[in-house]
Amino acid sequence: MSRSVQALPVVPDPSPELLQRALAVRRSATALGQLGDDQRRAAVEAMADGLERSREGILAANRADLEAAAADGLAPALVARLKLDGAKLDAAIAGVRQVAALSDPLGRRQLHTELDQGLVLERITVPLGVLGVIFEARPDAVMQIASLAIRSGNGALLKGGKEASRSCVAILAALRTGLAGSAVEPSALELLTSRQESLALLRLDGLVDLIIPRGSNALVRFIQDNTRIPVLGHADGICHLYVDRQVDVDQALAVAIDAKTQYPAACNAIETLLVHEASAPLFLPRAVAAFSAVGVELRGDGPARALGVSAAAEEDDWRTEYSDLILAVKVVAGLEEALDHIATYGSRHTDAICTTDPQAADHFLAAVNSAGVYLNCSTRFADGFRYGFGAEVGISTQTLPPRGPVGLEGLVTYRYRLRGEGHIAADYASGARRFSHRALPL
Amino acid sequence: MSRSVQALPVVPDPSPELLQRALAVRRSATALGQLGDDQRRAAVEAMADGLERSREGILAANRADLEAAAADGLAPALVARLKLDGAKLDAAIAGVRQVAALSDPLGRRQLHTELDQGLVLERITVPLGVLGVIFEARPDAVMQIASLAIRSGNGALLKGGKEASRSCVAILAALRTGLAGSAVEPSALELLTSRQESLALLRLDGLVDLIIPRGSNALVRFIQDNTRIPVLGHADGICHLYVDRQVDVDQALAVAIDAKTQYPAACNAIETLLVHEASAPLFLPRAVAAFSAVGVELRGDGPARALGVSAAAEEDDWRTEYSDLILAVKVVAGLEEALDHIATYGSRHTDAICTTDPQAADHFLAAVNSAGVYLNCSTRFADGFRYGFGAEVGISTQTLPPRGPVGLEGLVTYRYRLRGEGHIAADYASGARRFSHRALPL
Repeated sequence: MSRSVQALPVVPDPSPELLQRALAVRRSATALGQLGDDQRRAAVEAMADGLERSREGILAANRADLEAAAADGLAPALVARLKLDGAKLDAAIAGVRQVAALSDPLGRRQLHTELDQGLVLERITVPLGVLGVIFEARPDAVMQIASLAIRSGNGALLKGGKEASRSCVAILAALRTGLAGSAVEPSALELLTSRQESLALLRLDGLVDLIIPRGSNALVRFIQDNTRIPVLGHADGICHLYVDRQVDVDQALAVAIDAKTQYPAACNAIETLLVHEASAPLFLPRAVAAFSAVGVELRGDGPARALGVSAAAEEDDWRTEYSDLILAVKVVAGLEEALDHIATYGSRHTDAICTTDPQAADHFLAAVNSAGVYLNCSTRFADGFRYGFGAEVGISTQTLPPRGPVGLEGLVTYRYRLRGEGHIAADYASGARRFSHRALPL
Repeated sequence: MSRSVQALPVVPDPSPELLQRALAVRRSATALGQLGDDQRRAAVEAMADGLERSREGILAANRADLEAAAADGLAPALVARLKLDGAKLDAAIAGVRQVAALSDPLGRRQLHTELDQGLVLERITVPLGVLGVIFEARPDAVMQIASLAIRSGNGALLKGGKEASRSCVAILAALRTGLAGSAVEPSALELLTSRQESLALLRLDGLVDLIIPRGSNALVRFIQDNTRIPVLGHADGICHLYVDRQVDVDQALAVAIDAKTQYPAACNAIETLLVHEASAPLFLPRAVAAFSAVGVELRGDGPARALGVSAAAEEDDWRTEYSDLILAVKVVAGLEEALDHIATYGSRHTDAICTTDPQAADHFLAAVNSAGVYLNCSTRFADGFRYGFGAEVGISTQTLPPRGPVGLEGLVTYRYRLRGEGHIAADYASGARRFSHRALPL
């Protein structure tokens, strides 16, 4: 599949100093992972308290970041994300308290089986250990990610975009001051400050259990190719909306406009509109007018252009994540062609159908192999908050779990606990004893 | 983390012919993933029927493999695994029928939430898609893996050890003949026959969803370092048994002997015995006699040698998977030192404590971050069959799920389905509508 070739940085070995700090995070995380729900909840509340106490210092650090950004001519969209005023900081602190209030993802018993008399197996959710998170120059991200990490019993090595470096230093200091009054060691959170350190993070296997890169597709791919540590990320968001033969045109139009325009830069915005040839003559002329009215450029195949789309779509349009007010449009002979197109060009993120035909709906929902498959609603709902998870670390387009929007639940793993009374395997190999494999209540 | 350096093969790009075959598997897997429980179960039964019909041909192919192995001077242990006589084939066919009888891992609803009136979210288990499995020269493995793949709705590209090539060709032909009479397309299963093909498998991202390497640690690491496709494997099995201060010595002795000797080549056998200094004077002399009686070589630290262990353990012994009748022995000052040792040298596979102290037991079970943490029983229970999973594809030592012994459940992922009635995100952004996030029955 066409991938851009680029100059690749060299991944350095971690410095002894970085190894020491990573080891300290790991040790603190081991202790953190054994704390109870109340202690971790109180620790996250203490982090919020710490932020409140350091409010002025954090805002001043952010002003310094903004001044440097202005001097460097940072793009307005990036400045907007970098800016942390009093209201945004208060909202972020409230978000930290919301994470504290989420129910505990740890200690959940997923399996409980008597293997034999006196030999009982459990599967219990436990923390992953240490997260390595690389995120954009957004000061609110460090507060959100740090609170999700501590709530789920994980330590974290955090690396924010360099334009937010002063803000991140001030925020991390505040979070650690908060933790100092809790059962969690402040060293469970560590800030990486240089590009060399964030590259060396990729070589910390054994000390870091999951890398979460929030950033460009190129960044995610580079990380996947250069580390043995599991990576939770999404490489592409090429989402589709298919407008079926039998369709409520007004509804489909509203869904299409929302899915493209409600936040075009989001990964869950649609990039391609597929329209059944039977509904195209009715749907497309109205869609052309409606998209034109909100400033969306349409690029169509031949039949779409015959129905009013002015620009031509090239082969590359079907595989492009525009992240902008541009939408590719293709007329298809039917549901099967739509499914083929999605299977060929989609990124298994989120794809939707608008139809009033229950059979077509069921077939689409069963056949599309994406993290989200939607019926008669906007792809923009693919989000941890909207799903009711309370918070999210990101959206995963990998096939293995965690898939789709990832909340606290995606930051845990499980462990098998087996308690016996001197049971040995030889007795079962010889036939002296037999397994009962009796399910016990969860 | 001492890792052996070795000459690395070059990973070639897939040939057009391999791409075609992989695409055919993917297409068949997409159809297979939409079949119901009954159809998949019947297909696995049909695979067993196909094996029965081709019984003589399979046994003849295996005899040819054995003759070639004899000519090449293959080691006796490998010949034993390669050999497929009538009894072993019958047992393998019975195993295929057992997989057919396992309960369906697909279509399970894990989450069910009303986001708003008429907007309902579900999370449903679905197949991964296509598995790439690289396994040893064991003809029974191809039958087991193929049946697990089809039962869980996945296509598979299979590559067996070259010594078993004739057997694998005959078995795969029989399995596909069986599938021809079922709802599953025979092309859902494909055999890779050359080393070049198994290397090119690593570059089939987009067509293969999970690689399962069953083989040496070096093989697993090479694959992890050379593919963007997720890998399910275990890199090491350095399991520990810690004999605590308060302990039933007879019980601990029986557990230790079983955990080391019941099958020393298995990854869940122990490599290191940690003994509390208070129980060592009583435990170790008896252990030295008992291990000596069953031919186990002990290698101890200073205090262990003072109590009868004859050979000295070097630093490297603590990080060695002997896979043999050798056991490293260390006397520790207490539980904390044992935990530190396991955290430093363990591979997070399976670690056990023998103790009669409930507090020590609880602390150990909470603090050891391994896939399996055991109390008063042998580490040899870490196995999918023994856990009651009915079958296993292998044991995973990665931290993220699937972790530990992996059965059918580890071959599935999930998908979010959202059904609406024209719901758009803008209404929630504007405050015109609010999420209810009401839990619905599973």
